[in-house]
Amino acid sequence: MTNDIDELIEALLCLPSVGPRSAQRMAYHLLLHKRKQGVHLAERLKQAMTNIKHCQYCNTFSCEAICSLCSAGERDTNQICIVETPLDLLAIEKTSVFNGQYFVLMGLLSPIDGIGPDKLSIDKLLARCQQLGTQEVIFATNSSMEGEATVYYLQEQLTPLGVCFSQLARGVPMGGALEYLDSSTISRALSKRSIITDNIS
Amino acid sequence: MTNDIDELIEALLCLPSVGPRSAQRMAYHLLLHKRKQGVHLAERLKQAMTNIKHCQYCNTFSCEAICSLCSAGERDTNQICIVETPLDLLAIEKTSVFNGQYFVLMGLLSPIDGIGPDKLSIDKLLARCQQLGTQEVIFATNSSMEGEATVYYLQEQLTPLGVCFSQLARGVPMGGALEYLDSSTISRALSKRSIITDNIS
Repeated sequence: MTNDIDELIEALLCLPSVGPRSAQRMAYHLLLHKRKQGVHLAERLKQAMTNIKHCQYCNTFSCEAICSLCSAGERDTNQICIVETPLDLLAIEKTSVFNGQYFVLMGLLSPIDGIGPDKLSIDKLLARCQQLGTQEVIFATNSSMEGEATVYYLQEQLTPLGVCFSQLARGVPMGGALEYLDSSTISRALSKRSIITDNIS
Repeated sequence: MTNDIDELIEALLCLPSVGPRSAQRMAYHLLLHKRKQGVHLAERLKQAMTNIKHCQYCNTFSCEAICSLCSAGERDTNQICIVETPLDLLAIEKTSVFNGQYFVLMGLLSPIDGIGPDKLSIDKLLARCQQLGTQEVIFATNSSMEGEATVYYLQEQLTPLGVCFSQLARGVPMGGALEYLDSSTISRALSKRSIITDNIS
């Protein structure tokens, strides 16, 4: 109908899981009912896209040079937990059981998608581990092919630092129904089963 | 983590069917992978929200004073089709079977939501019908309570113009499975059934 609307619909397609139909619905919804909020969203969006940088220490998103987690003095510097994205970091923080440092890779090794070691800020990670005198590196990446490859590569790079490596336990999730789990998770959970009581001896 | 991200997530909630979880996913997706497109979206959004006005004739969204449909000379001026939203107009245009004029109410009468006759640009509609010398007014509003009330009210207002009123046929949609249709649609379709062959006489 008008170019401005079509251009807005086109631009909305960059949002995840938004196709032409929902983009159209969003554009008309804002125009009909929420013009002010639409302008507000435009301003917030521009500000976030241009202001947000990476924390110099842990590489997560931050407006400051050092993010709030890295500048919090009371956190343990012996452990560093390596995650793929800032959302993974938030998911671990939500558990409140980890009080060490983080490092956010912002991706995983994936040669098919053109993501090589140069894209993952590995120099920054090495520098951070040396600076902290890290003793344990905890890999908390997804258990995909790319995750495993990244863990393997990072171990090679970090070995000279003389640190201990660990990774999240793999197994049946809490409340997970066996019938819906994939066989590789079940077979892994079986081979890594934990003894409850051993009455043999 | 940072205020700019939280503010962006908050602002994204104005989009239809977007809750806190998907707003978070959208914000991080743009920050991680699509900064440029995010800035582009912000610009398009601001432009659309501030530039798009209503067509002086048919009231639909338009950047120009008169929209492209109303300024198209070859369209029939005897018929005017009244719809609720610009999306309804687009849906009818897509069929390519209607070549008359449109009028977009931008809502339906709904006293509960505070939408009275003053919100529906009825003066504009009356002026447009007189200007065109309209002979037939086609009501293409949804067949909801609000739709019916609006049709009733508009008929009262337009009667002095001496025009013919019509509305979209109600019945079973093409390809519609009877078992999934509501009873009021089926009973209406039954009472308005059309004779295929009458062999009685």
